Amino acid sequence: MVKDPSESLRRFIRPVRDFPRKGILFRDITPLLLDEAAFGDAIEVFYRRYLGMGIDKIVSIEARGFILGSVLAYRLGIGFVPVRKPNKLPAETIREAYTLEYGEDTLEMHADAIGKGDSVLIIDDLLATGGSAVAASRLVERCGGVIRELAFLIELSFLNGREKLRPRPVFTIIDYRDEVS
Amino acid sequence: MVKDPSESLRRFIRPVRDFPRKGILFRDITPLLLDEAAFGDAIEVFYRRYLGMGIDKIVSIEARGFILGSVLAYRLGIGFVPVRKPNKLPAETIREAYTLEYGEDTLEMHADAIGKGDSVLIIDDLLATGGSAVAASRLVERCGGVIRELAFLIELSFLNGREKLRPRPVFTIIDYRDEVS
Repeated sequence: MVKDPSESLRRFIRPVRDFPRKGILFRDITPLLLDEAAFGDAIEVFYRRYLGMGIDKIVSIEARGFILGSVLAYRLGIGFVPVRKPNKLPAETIREAYTLEYGEDTLEMHADAIGKGDSVLIIDDLLATGGSAVAASRLVERCGGVIRELAFLIELSFLNGREKLRPRPVFTIIDYRDEVS
Repeated sequence: MVKDPSESLRRFIRPVRDFPRKGILFRDITPLLLDEAAFGDAIEVFYRRYLGMGIDKIVSIEARGFILGSVLAYRLGIGFVPVRKPNKLPAETIREAYTLEYGEDTLEMHADAIGKGDSVLIIDDLLATGGSAVAASRLVERCGGVIRELAFLIELSFLNGREKLRPRPVFTIIDYRDEVS
């Protein structure tokens, strides 16, 4: 692995114009998932950062977040907690709503998934406006969990999602500073 | 790891009554995901089975399938391909519809994800009636991929999903032979 993997990993992110709607440049991670070396390098960056930090559980957001989060949990040898869209988790859940550009959405977590004092890493593929990451953070904190960090493969820093997550620490590998580059 | 891990892993599957609707006994894998040893044992069963089989890519179905599939792809050092609900994948896709108990659903895969002759393992958490697994199989086969096997953590064998998947090989770790046990 090179010392700064962000540039080499960036080559595996495919820009797709006008998805999910006109004017949006979507950052597609599926070419990275297809390349075992690139995917392994991305996991290695997270692994080196979080090894020895005493993290108890990784919480990930449906559905792309599951891909990175479950692999990192496996690599670190710690538990994995899925945060899902409404009515997907079968046992008792807690819910948090968050605002989208148009309208509102909700995330759920099993009420018994996080215990008081658990040291938690939240991981997702992409930090945009931060709405879903804030909702996931609140779910963890309502259970008494302590968020050590939120980690993302990609950050769209021009959308200022980090601001919403303050004062929680945020780590990202690849940053896009504007919509068009 | 014990020689037959299916009994020890079964203890981590939580039965939830009347989910997603009255009369259904749902098999909840989230306690297994929370237990790093049990989750590691499950991955180890798949890893030992598929190591050295020359599999090129793992294809998994949104969303729980991503959890097992991505970890196994990482462990085997091969590419990961997500199959998703409609309008989630940004680039050019192919689609397959399948029948549910009430109505129909559709799965999509990126058209460039599988190449002619690719040796493919399809993995999901649970084999029930087999509708989504058949749809995923067809997506792979339309691209010229060869399905070496379909693997599931759990099989509800009383629903006869294996029949629909014939003649493709199927491997499962935990079997429930009736709805109530």
